[in-house]
Amino acid sequence: MAIIDFFLTQDVRFPTSKQLDGSDAMNPDPDYSAAYVSFGVTGGESGHSSVFTIGRGNDVQVAALESLKPYVMDRDLDELLSDMGSLYKELTGDSQLRWLGPEKGVMHMAIGAVVNALWDIKAKREGKPVWELLADMSPEEMTGLIDFRYLEGVLTPAQALELFEAAVPHREARKAALRAEGYPAYTTSPGWLGYSDEKLERLAREAIADGFGRIKLKVGADKADDIRRLGVARRVCGDGFPIAVDANQRWGVAEAIDWITALAPFEPDWVEEPTSPDDILGHAEIARAVAPIRVSTGEHMASRVIARQLLESNAVGLLQIDSARVAGVNENVAILAMAAVKGVRVFPHAGGVGLCEAVQHLAFFDYVSITGLKEDRAIEYVDHLHEHFVDPVTVHSGRYWSTDVPGTSQEMKPESRDYFEFPHGQEWRS
Amino acid sequence: MAIIDFFLTQDVRFPTSKQLDGSDAMNPDPDYSAAYVSFGVTGGESGHSSVFTIGRGNDVQVAALESLKPYVMDRDLDELLSDMGSLYKELTGDSQLRWLGPEKGVMHMAIGAVVNALWDIKAKREGKPVWELLADMSPEEMTGLIDFRYLEGVLTPAQALELFEAAVPHREARKAALRAEGYPAYTTSPGWLGYSDEKLERLAREAIADGFGRIKLKVGADKADDIRRLGVARRVCGDGFPIAVDANQRWGVAEAIDWITALAPFEPDWVEEPTSPDDILGHAEIARAVAPIRVSTGEHMASRVIARQLLESNAVGLLQIDSARVAGVNENVAILAMAAVKGVRVFPHAGGVGLCEAVQHLAFFDYVSITGLKEDRAIEYVDHLHEHFVDPVTVHSGRYWSTDVPGTSQEMKPESRDYFEFPHGQEWRS
Repeated sequence: MAIIDFFLTQDVRFPTSKQLDGSDAMNPDPDYSAAYVSFGVTGGESGHSSVFTIGRGNDVQVAALESLKPYVMDRDLDELLSDMGSLYKELTGDSQLRWLGPEKGVMHMAIGAVVNALWDIKAKREGKPVWELLADMSPEEMTGLIDFRYLEGVLTPAQALELFEAAVPHREARKAALRAEGYPAYTTSPGWLGYSDEKLERLAREAIADGFGRIKLKVGADKADDIRRLGVARRVCGDGFPIAVDANQRWGVAEAIDWITALAPFEPDWVEEPTSPDDILGHAEIARAVAPIRVSTGEHMASRVIARQLLESNAVGLLQIDSARVAGVNENVAILAMAAVKGVRVFPHAGGVGLCEAVQHLAFFDYVSITGLKEDRAIEYVDHLHEHFVDPVTVHSGRYWSTDVPGTSQEMKPESRDYFEFPHGQEWRS
Repeated sequence: MAIIDFFLTQDVRFPTSKQLDGSDAMNPDPDYSAAYVSFGVTGGESGHSSVFTIGRGNDVQVAALESLKPYVMDRDLDELLSDMGSLYKELTGDSQLRWLGPEKGVMHMAIGAVVNALWDIKAKREGKPVWELLADMSPEEMTGLIDFRYLEGVLTPAQALELFEAAVPHREARKAALRAEGYPAYTTSPGWLGYSDEKLERLAREAIADGFGRIKLKVGADKADDIRRLGVARRVCGDGFPIAVDANQRWGVAEAIDWITALAPFEPDWVEEPTSPDDILGHAEIARAVAPIRVSTGEHMASRVIARQLLESNAVGLLQIDSARVAGVNENVAILAMAAVKGVRVFPHAGGVGLCEAVQHLAFFDYVSITGLKEDRAIEYVDHLHEHFVDPVTVHSGRYWSTDVPGTSQEMKPESRDYFEFPHGQEWRS
């Protein structure tokens, strides 16, 4: 019997605001941060994960993780690992914790990190990267990961089972194809609002030279600037090259429609987060008005309940799952399955710190054991902070290359965690 | 100049799970709790408020309050009080804190309590209960309280101004009527799931004898039990007496329709929280299917954005605002104004600890300076934990009676806070 005997949290913050990396219309000065959690058996197995935040409030996120310690400490690890749906459902269903959401915000994200850290242990024990661990599960096990409450209308247990079963004959070939071909990436690196036109142009050229088949620009602060910047990008990238734009929730519905119409001549590939991530009806209205330009959201999509409604009402032309926003791998399996049932393509959100490392596994799993599609999809990529991870992403030639390292790739190097620990790490003391 | 020089938080928990007070289908064993905050000037003015939770996680809510301390400490109180929209908009608009929601969950509720504590100071300084302070504001000031982002389609600044202006000529007469006649209350006290049929019957009889014109029963754990319990209540109360039922999010859409149909012969006045509070489309579908029975929600309604969609899509026949779920008085003013524009009646959620004290002010304000309607509305009432407040609600003859004590009525007695402080207060040490 393996009993969990340690549960540790850390408040880790990187001073990214100094360079205006990650600046957008809603987030002018983010300090990319991780509310970090690890637990396991002393001297034995351990799992790692974190919630991504952008600075202030990371301490609150750590407090939420700490509040989950009693649910994990002294538990039988073998028992928890024997049913990977159980801890997820126990935590999201806990009546007292539910009051703090339900299924949204700080407490929900903390549950996600704890669930993901358990997946990290599971994958390490099985000696597989978590994408492959998931991809190799039986359709019944996969179905058991999902909480189907509130999903009817889009996804029932029978539909999920059928979806997973249909992929079984193709899994091995897809795993081989993934390893041989990689998975498309796109990059937001050229498009941050804080950058000059010259820097935008230079980075866009570099992105194309690096093999990226799609880039994304932040928009929404100033319409004339956006028209100019998108013009620069279109000129550099050429006609037909996919350029997405991202408004980070800046607009109301009418303003979104007006602004997107002004950008339409530059043929944006999609318009991301045009308005509040909770505004199902608003997204649907914008989508109808700006078609064929596609509307998307997801990095702030609080739960599978919001995802189900976005899909049910054709409010999004594509969906952007996030590894750290919902209650972990389990809830993202539900969202991926719903998107597949509705035929909506997923372009995972990443960037931040650790998001690329985490979300790649979900995209690979989706390809192998759900949709079998990858060439018309892409995982977001931003080229910073990867050096702090034990198993950083491998991205070159415009593609993610699948890892074979056991686990979830979310373990941050101990020396990085200590150096950037807030407020007592060396970085913040100076 | 008055500079804020203290900001204190407390984790206060009442062991209500011992008596099964407050038990429902989703919350079998709540310990009613308050994440308490007070700030002000030492030896001078101070404001008090709290976030209601049901036990575990109250410490996380306190941590969220603590994280707001730097936004309040050392600020010029006169400046903050001169524009009661400013602190609210500053906190909900803070880019780094926004990442933790946006506008939902633990961080949003913490912002609400801080905003409400500022209202407490404002009302005390003006020597008025906050309902009257609000009711006496100019229509322009009221409009300035609201963040209109994401509300277009239901509420614009011009619409809000017009709404508030229309009430001005009637305010004084309505204030007099409120003081003379009170405001209707309804009670959930008979209907908790943990109670026996005998206790339900006895408490229902007492409620009627006490003058309540409406009661509410918790449902959703067992259909046969619900049919039997609603039968008991209907027999005791008589035909035509309004009996609401509350499922506390227990059902999916199809199950809700099925269950409500089974309860329909007992003519429930409304069905509260039939499904996920985030499921706009689900509420709309249930509402269409079970009409003329009215669907309602609100105690877990995360923000004005969710409220706007519920109203826009006719998903609710009535709306239940909560004083502690959203970002304070300001966001509830927006929700009340939207409900008025859409002609949807508000039946405020209360109970818990301090919710009755807080929400009564919003209902009184709505009557005086927005809708002018109160006889076809009612504020929820539960008869416990009021003794811990400095200015407890006055409820008799089935009605709330307006307070004239300056402030927001949210100040808890220091001796109660200390006795029930978790985990070191006397109650929890023993």
